[in-house]
Amino acid sequence: TFTVGIDSGSTTTKGVLLQGETIVRRFLCPTSFRPAASIVEAWETLRAGLEEKPFLTLTGYGRQLVDFADKQVTEISCHGLGARLLLAQTRTVIDIGGQDSKVIALDEQGNLADFLMNDKCAAGTGRFLDVISRTLGTQVEHLDTITDGVEPHPLTSMCTVFAESEVISLRSAGIAPEAILAGVINAMARRSAHFISRLSTQGPLLFTGGVSHCATFRRMLAGHLKSDVFTHDDAQYAGALGAALIGQRQRKR
Amino acid sequence: TFTVGIDSGSTTTKGVLLQGETIVRRFLCPTSFRPAASIVEAWETLRAGLEEKPFLTLTGYGRQLVDFADKQVTEISCHGLGARLLLAQTRTVIDIGGQDSKVIALDEQGNLADFLMNDKCAAGTGRFLDVISRTLGTQVEHLDTITDGVEPHPLTSMCTVFAESEVISLRSAGIAPEAILAGVINAMARRSAHFISRLSTQGPLLFTGGVSHCATFRRMLAGHLKSDVFTHDDAQYAGALGAALIGQRQRKR
Ligand code: SF4
Repeated sequence: TFTVGIDSGSTTTKGVLLQGETIVRRFLCPTSFRPAASIVEAWETLRAGLEEKPFLTLTGYGRQLVDFADKQVTEISCHGLGARLLLAQTRTVIDIGGQDSKVIALDEQGNLADFLMNDKCAAGTGRFLDVISRTLGTQVEHLDTITDGVEPHPLTSMCTVFAESEVISLRSAGIAPEAILAGVINAMARRSAHFISRLSTQGPLLFTGGVSHCATFRRMLAGHLKSDVFTHDDAQYAGALGAALIGQRQRKR
Repeated sequence: TFTVGIDSGSTTTKGVLLQGETIVRRFLCPTSFRPAASIVEAWETLRAGLEEKPFLTLTGYGRQLVDFADKQVTEISCHGLGARLLLAQTRTVIDIGGQDSKVIALDEQGNLADFLMNDKCAAGTGRFLDVISRTLGTQVEHLDTITDGVEPHPLTSMCTVFAESEVISLRSAGIAPEAILAGVINAMARRSAHFISRLSTQGPLLFTGGVSHCATFRRMLAGHLKSDVFTHDDAQYAGALGAALIGQRQRKR
């Protein structure tokens, strides 16, 4: 039997069609200013051609925006569950998305032990990398290629707005853009490590959310945490996956 | 005898030529990316034509950047002193500049009792108003005219970056720009009141720094603080004034 999980995030909407513990289909689109329409699009795409209507679980910021879901669940529960499916022994989930970041501590059985969330300050989220990348005329997708093997130039400001000005002034002082970008990623990784260390966490650590795709960030984060940081190709779907899993469990009962 | 005080702020450089307790000349220019050059310009302008070289006291972020000053003093001491000259009974100084904000508590004699400072987050500073004004195609100077008598539209985000996105989405939802701007000022005034209340303060409160020129902000701040908020035409010079006063005292000894 099939279930669908959709994670309506403020930056991207993610969805999966799950059969047992296997992801059969994936869906991802920018949420932009139409979260409800993105959920509808995800739902239509994921269930297309199925004879029976799959059980639908919604999670994420926009989960209350449509009325056709079978269930709505908070992100924290979904991310924990999804992470354990991606890496069975996960004890800590670090999720950094476009507009928020969270750390979730799980016990040995995978139950929620504690969590921390930031959705108030852009500096600890993907938005920070996004703003600075654009300021330097590039895109987040190119950060790994640009910063590969580059020595980071130190960055003083942690606020996105002040960092943007600092970056402009470093550029006009002749600092190479790749060194600035490496410095920006390093500054954010240091800040994230600090945020994570506010929770008493254990390994293995699974890094999820959009920012987990940036290998330079991951490497620097691991350096600051002095710990391995694992990720997974499907890391951005962890929330959606957890939501779909909840549907599987519900159907079994 | 004349003394000069220059306050090298991160956004503007302010200076005064003081004779006794009277401001004889004022100087103000944007600091942009040339803080040292701005100090030199202030110094040359303020001392121009004087027979004797006046005693020069520097304060503000850039106070260490040049080597021709007679004295360098931290902003906090200067702001307290300057504020007392502008309003003799001042017990609390609220200074909101382009890139920082501070609250200074003074005892009855005008001595420093306590202070709080924020220069890490753009949201509590003039930069916030600046960014949002530009997003809506206007300038901080026009905020009072635009928002006069306008009912503020509620704003959810406090982060400058997230507020910018929210403002764009409110605009595209058809909310009038003047209502959004009034809402933005109100949100920042509420946040400032909250910041101020972290210190146990007493009246009279003198509001200084660039943002003190915004009457709408001042009115809303007074509302949130449930207290009178005074200001002065020379409020932006409070730091420079305090620096020049320190020079006067030094010369008297
Ligand atoms: S203005 Fe800067 S420091 Fe403040 S909340 Fe936003 S990104 Fe964070």
